[in-house]
Amino acid sequence: MDISKFKDLDLSSRILLGPGPSMVPPRVLNALSTPPVGHLDPEFLGVLAEVKELLRFTFQTKNEVTFPISGTGSAGMEAALCNFIEPGDRVLIATNGYFGERLAEIAKRYGAQVDRLEHAWGDVFLPDEIEEALQKADYKLFAIVHGETSTGALQGNVKEIAELVHAHGALLVLDTVASLGGVPVKVDEWDVDICYSGSQKCLSAPPGLAPMTVSPRAMEVLMDRKTPVANWYLDFTLLTRYWGKPHVYHHTVPVNMIFALREALRLVAEEGLEERFARHRTNSETLWQGLEDLGMPPIIPLEHRLASLTTPKLPKGIDEKSIRRRLLTDFNVEISGGFGPFAGMIWRIGLMGFSSRRENVILLLSLMKELLFS
Amino acid sequence: MDISKFKDLDLSSRILLGPGPSMVPPRVLNALSTPPVGHLDPEFLGVLAEVKELLRFTFQTKNEVTFPISGTGSAGMEAALCNFIEPGDRVLIATNGYFGERLAEIAKRYGAQVDRLEHAWGDVFLPDEIEEALQKADYKLFAIVHGETSTGALQGNVKEIAELVHAHGALLVLDTVASLGGVPVKVDEWDVDICYSGSQKCLSAPPGLAPMTVSPRAMEVLMDRKTPVANWYLDFTLLTRYWGKPHVYHHTVPVNMIFALREALRLVAEEGLEERFARHRTNSETLWQGLEDLGMPPIIPLEHRLASLTTPKLPKGIDEKSIRRRLLTDFNVEISGGFGPFAGMIWRIGLMGFSSRRENVILLLSLMKELLFS
Repeated sequence: MDISKFKDLDLSSRILLGPGPSMVPPRVLNALSTPPVGHLDPEFLGVLAEVKELLRFTFQTKNEVTFPISGTGSAGMEAALCNFIEPGDRVLIATNGYFGERLAEIAKRYGAQVDRLEHAWGDVFLPDEIEEALQKADYKLFAIVHGETSTGALQGNVKEIAELVHAHGALLVLDTVASLGGVPVKVDEWDVDICYSGSQKCLSAPPGLAPMTVSPRAMEVLMDRKTPVANWYLDFTLLTRYWGKPHVYHHTVPVNMIFALREALRLVAEEGLEERFARHRTNSETLWQGLEDLGMPPIIPLEHRLASLTTPKLPKGIDEKSIRRRLLTDFNVEISGGFGPFAGMIWRIGLMGFSSRRENVILLLSLMKELLFS
Repeated sequence: MDISKFKDLDLSSRILLGPGPSMVPPRVLNALSTPPVGHLDPEFLGVLAEVKELLRFTFQTKNEVTFPISGTGSAGMEAALCNFIEPGDRVLIATNGYFGERLAEIAKRYGAQVDRLEHAWGDVFLPDEIEEALQKADYKLFAIVHGETSTGALQGNVKEIAELVHAHGALLVLDTVASLGGVPVKVDEWDVDICYSGSQKCLSAPPGLAPMTVSPRAMEVLMDRKTPVANWYLDFTLLTRYWGKPHVYHHTVPVNMIFALREALRLVAEEGLEERFARHRTNSETLWQGLEDLGMPPIIPLEHRLASLTTPKLPKGIDEKSIRRRLLTDFNVEISGGFGPFAGMIWRIGLMGFSSRRENVILLLSLMKELLFS
C-alpha cells in the first residue's frame, strides 16, 4: 500500500448548524485529548463519579442509575428498550417522526408486541389520546420522543403523560437526544422512568456517548426479568456494577470520550440550566423571526417548536440541495435537509449547545438571504 | 449543586502497561481533538474511505466490509455473533479463558444452541480436537480467541483451523482484540470470516471503537437470514449502507474517535506491519528474560506466548495487590492482576502499541526488582 497518499488530517473548519453533531467548545476538545488512564484506575473511578453527578444535575434527577452508555444516542435508545422488554411484552410507541419509528422497530426486534400510536410527522400528542391508547391493552412500557430531530417538534405535557402511563402500570421511556441541555428536561419532577440522550447535540461533546438515567421503579422491572437481557453490551444488570460499586469490569469504556463529556457537563453546570435554556430560546427566536422575514417560517407551530432545532418550510421552486451544497462548500456552514415525508420540503437547522451563538444566527440568515434571492 | 468542586481534569500521567488501554501517541491525541465535522459531510465520507483502506491493510484483507463498530471491542464481539446467529442455530465456541466464556454467553443470548470446546485457562487448542468437535453437530459458526487477554495465550494454526471449519460448512469468528497490530493477523491468507478487534490495545487509539472485517462468505450468510438481526445498533445490513454507498444515515458515528483511529492506523502503516510485530516481539522478549531472572517466568510456554501481553507466575508469599498499588501510586505504572482461576496467581503486563517501548520495559523490571526484593 502506498502510505504517502494518507496525509495529515486537514479538514475544513465547519460551522455546524445541522441536527448534530454540534460544534465542540475548545475546553471540551482539550479534555478529550488528555492522555488516557486505565478504566479501573482509582483516579478514573473518581471521574466516573463526577460524570454521574454532573449528569444527574443535567437530567434534574436523583436517580442512582445515571451514566453514559458507551455508544451513540442510538445505542441509548436500544438500551432504553432492550433492558425492559422481554419477548411477548406489549409496548406502546408514539410515532410522529423518524425516531418514533425507530423506537417501534427496535422494540419489535426484542420480541415485543408493538402497538403504535400514530400521528403525522410534525404533530405532537395530547394526553387524552395517549390515555385512550393505554386503555387498549396491558402495556409494559410507553415510549415517546421529547424532541423529534426529524421534524423539530417538541412534545409537551410530559408530566401529565407520565401520570397516565403510571396509572396504567407502565414505564415511561423518553427520548431526549435532541433536547437535553437545550430545553428543560425534568426527569424527577415529570417522573420519567427511562430517559436517554446523545453527547453530540445540546451537550456539545463529540458523538459517541449516550447519557442515560433510570428510575428505581424501572430498575425493579429490570431486576424482575425472567430472561437475561438479550443485548450483552447494553445490559444494565452488568453496566451498573461497573459504573457503581463494586466497579466490576464489563467493557473498557471510552475513557477519552468520558473526559470530554465531563468537561461538556461542567460547562452546562457553569452556565446554569435556566441560562442555557434561555440562550437556546433567544437565539432560536432570532432565527425564527429572520426565517419569517425571508418568507420561510418554521413548519412547527410556535407552541410545539423545539428551541434546539428549527425546520423552515422551503419556498417553492428553489434547488434546496444546491443551496445547502453552496453553504457548505463556499461558506463552511452545515445545515441539513428533510427526509421521509419532509424530503425537499424543509431544512433542519440546529442551534445546539456551542453552536447556539448569535454570530452563527446572523451569518446563516445573511447567507440565506444572499443564496435564496440573488 | 456546588459546581466549584468540579476542577479542571488533572490526572496523573500514567505509564500504561496493563492489558489495555495502552498509551496513545501524541499524534493520535492531536487528531482526536480535531474540531468535528458532520457525519455525512463529503470530507468526512473521504475520511471513512481512508479508514476502511487502512483497516484492510492492518487486517491484511481485501474484504469490502471492513470498518470500525461504534463501540468498544466488546461491541465488536457482539456484532461478530448477533449478525450471523438466528435463534436455534448451533454454534461451537472454544473456551480457554474469560473472553471465550464471554463469546459463549453472548451467543446464548441471541438464541444459539451453544456447544463449548473447553480447555483450562492458559491452554490453546489443537486442530485435531477442533475437527473432532466440529463433527458432532451441524454448526453454523465456530468462534475462537486469537490472543486471550485473560491468560496471555496465543492461538496458533488459525489457517488450518479455518480449513477445517469451512470443510464442515461453518464460519470462523476470530477475536483479535489483544493481537491486531501487535502480532500477525492475516485475515485473507488464513481465510477468517469474521474478525474483530479493539482500538485501545496494539493499535494505541483510545478505547471506543471496534475494527471489524467480514468475508463475502459471511456476508452471504447474513443476507440469507430469515429473521432480522436482533440487535439494531450492530446490524450489518444497515451499517454497511452507511460505511459504503449510498452512505445512508444509521447513527451518528463517533467522528473524533474515527479521526484518532485513522491516525493510529496511519502510524501502523508508516511503521510497517513486520517492523511493528518485530518491535512487539523484541520488547516482550526483553521482558520475558527479565522476569525469568527475577524468578517469575511467564506461565505460558514460549511457543504459545502472546507477544503483546505477558503473564508472569507470581512468587509465593508476595502481597501482589500492594505491589501493584505502589507501582501505580508511587511510580505511575499500571499493570493488572489476574482474575478468575488466575486471581492472585499471575500479573498481566501489556506491551501494546505505543506502550511497547524499551524504556518502559527497563523501568518496569527495575521497579519490580526493587518492590519485590527490597
